[in-house]
Amino acid sequence: MQSGLTVRIGELWYNFFAMNVKKFVKPNIYSLTAYQAKEISCRVKLDANESPYGFADGYTVLKSVKTNRYPDPEATMLKRLLAKEWGIRPANILQGNGSDELIYYLITAFGGPVLYPVPTFSMYGIIAQALGEKGIGIPLGTDFDLDGSRMAGAIRREKPKIIFLSSPNNPTGNCFSSEKMLQIIASTSSKSLVVVDEAYHPFASEKGFLPMLGDYRNLVIMRTLSKIGLAGLRVGFLIASGEIIEEVNKVRLPFNLNALSQAVAAEVMQHKAELRQHIRAIVREREKVFAELSNVEGVAPYPSEANFILFRVEDVDRVYQGLLGEGVLVRHMKGVVEGCLRVTIGTPEENRIFLRALKKVVRSEKEDK
Amino acid sequence: MQSGLTVRIGELWYNFFAMNVKKFVKPNIYSLTAYQAKEISCRVKLDANESPYGFADGYTVLKSVKTNRYPDPEATMLKRLLAKEWGIRPANILQGNGSDELIYYLITAFGGPVLYPVPTFSMYGIIAQALGEKGIGIPLGTDFDLDGSRMAGAIRREKPKIIFLSSPNNPTGNCFSSEKMLQIIASTSSKSLVVVDEAYHPFASEKGFLPMLGDYRNLVIMRTLSKIGLAGLRVGFLIASGEIIEEVNKVRLPFNLNALSQAVAAEVMQHKAELRQHIRAIVREREKVFAELSNVEGVAPYPSEANFILFRVEDVDRVYQGLLGEGVLVRHMKGVVEGCLRVTIGTPEENRIFLRALKKVVRSEKEDK
Repeated sequence: MQSGLTVRIGELWYNFFAMNVKKFVKPNIYSLTAYQAKEISCRVKLDANESPYGFADGYTVLKSVKTNRYPDPEATMLKRLLAKEWGIRPANILQGNGSDELIYYLITAFGGPVLYPVPTFSMYGIIAQALGEKGIGIPLGTDFDLDGSRMAGAIRREKPKIIFLSSPNNPTGNCFSSEKMLQIIASTSSKSLVVVDEAYHPFASEKGFLPMLGDYRNLVIMRTLSKIGLAGLRVGFLIASGEIIEEVNKVRLPFNLNALSQAVAAEVMQHKAELRQHIRAIVREREKVFAELSNVEGVAPYPSEANFILFRVEDVDRVYQGLLGEGVLVRHMKGVVEGCLRVTIGTPEENRIFLRALKKVVRSEKEDK
Repeated sequence: MQSGLTVRIGELWYNFFAMNVKKFVKPNIYSLTAYQAKEISCRVKLDANESPYGFADGYTVLKSVKTNRYPDPEATMLKRLLAKEWGIRPANILQGNGSDELIYYLITAFGGPVLYPVPTFSMYGIIAQALGEKGIGIPLGTDFDLDGSRMAGAIRREKPKIIFLSSPNNPTGNCFSSEKMLQIIASTSSKSLVVVDEAYHPFASEKGFLPMLGDYRNLVIMRTLSKIGLAGLRVGFLIASGEIIEEVNKVRLPFNLNALSQAVAAEVMQHKAELRQHIRAIVREREKVFAELSNVEGVAPYPSEANFILFRVEDVDRVYQGLLGEGVLVRHMKGVVEGCLRVTIGTPEENRIFLRALKKVVRSEKEDK
């Protein structure tokens, strides 16, 4: 066939040129580093912006799932429930195996460049690179809000196909100014999709962008069940005009949302009182933790509308390790927001353990000086 | 910002150029049609190559899954079990949200052109187009086996980065000649990845390509749990050299396999006796259904090593509709293998219903003539 060096010896064919995978893979992939989601054992896990509350009872519904059958490719029941909750039509919703997959699909369908403020959720940039598209991070301005003129300049210069705005923003915790966001959406109306990632919206006081959906045809909203108690299920949603959903749906794998996750999500969505109670508990705790952090000398928390708090400490490596020594895992923001840690709001008990450990660690730091 | 036509009226910003999504989306996506996995109601569902046997007891394990936590990004337990089963290392396995996702990742990581014999599993071509890569289908030869010289010519001409060989092949049911496959793998050793999709391997008498993994560095194998009773879970695997796995892993979403599917799959993998019993029952029934089909006048089944049988009938539309009228759903192969239907092997009872219905439909057809 292709090469004269392919020879048959006994029952097998041989070729003496072996593949050099490093040269064979696409260059944008070769230079990419795999996302590190390594497990660190701990007593109190406050590093991943998960909810501390699960829904053990939701499992009873699984007895009716036929695992030997393919899942509903349209996630009909789940989309119907959410459409009702959000006051939109199921045709405006696309289900994803987490928001991550929907970011993949958006960039696959529309291409790049992909622009986003930084620091923000890391997957926008990682997925852009995986798909061979340019990712452009524009530094945030004062108080971690959007830098309007810098964003405008970058948009003019780079002509992004997609702009991601995570609001509340991970890892800073704040919502961006609605007016600045709307100005970006309006100014790019025919040139860029603006994807407002509302993963943390349930914890925010802002009303979010769903009400704007009819006003801006380039507006796309992302929501997820990961932050409200169902991270293990991997269920995210894209919300946009039927026209946009239709195009993104073309690159969606037909059975991207497994049957178990569909069933549990649909079941839990019907227990709204419990969901809201969990969310209220987290918001209440966030305010308490923020107040307490503000009172610790050498610790400066940033205001948050999400289920986590970013805070600055004096010797970040030492505080991180000190907390871990006390069994408390938080997220080290090295390379993202220098000198900062990010703590997820846990149960009242977990938060108490975290605060006690932090005070101990910071105090011992002072004493050493 | 970008355009002088963006104006603020009251609280909102407006721009008078709305997005034309059809022009905004990538051209390869605009011309793509979404995969149609529409639901057709029926009494006996034999259209999707699912197993008729589920694992209701597997659910008890779910009580220990914490849905509020992110899943294990490495699917450690599941990969360990399969590595043991297959006699390889976990580092040679990559988990996917179904094989579909792994096809997506392979093409994302290595690019195209993507070459495959036709007819075959449709997703190779669909995903290639979704990712903007060229898909090349090369007609199969006699008895639906690979056409060696035609494949060799196409490989020389098109220089594919990836070659997909589904064996047993869907929808034809046969295994390709091992020697022809090995020759393709050896002749492309440094130029193409050859992905042997063994989705239907559990039902085949051939030993498969796992034993060859050490011999060919461009060999990639795909396996799935979808055909052996777990289609609802969406769990597929890529098996290859550590070097290839490492590159594909870079484009994998960190939490692509949800926690529920991981738990149920790991649990079921430990009930090997039950799994094997189901597989044996399906193979036994396949032989019976094949023999019976061969005896129906005007029906010509093709030999199968999978959990389905492709068969030719005289008036395919009428037989398809007639079966549906009897409550039996099979797959119409229109546009794939003209004049043929594909029936999944069900339980003995389901197969009896199918055969009885088919005989009735074919007989009434004869009588009408």
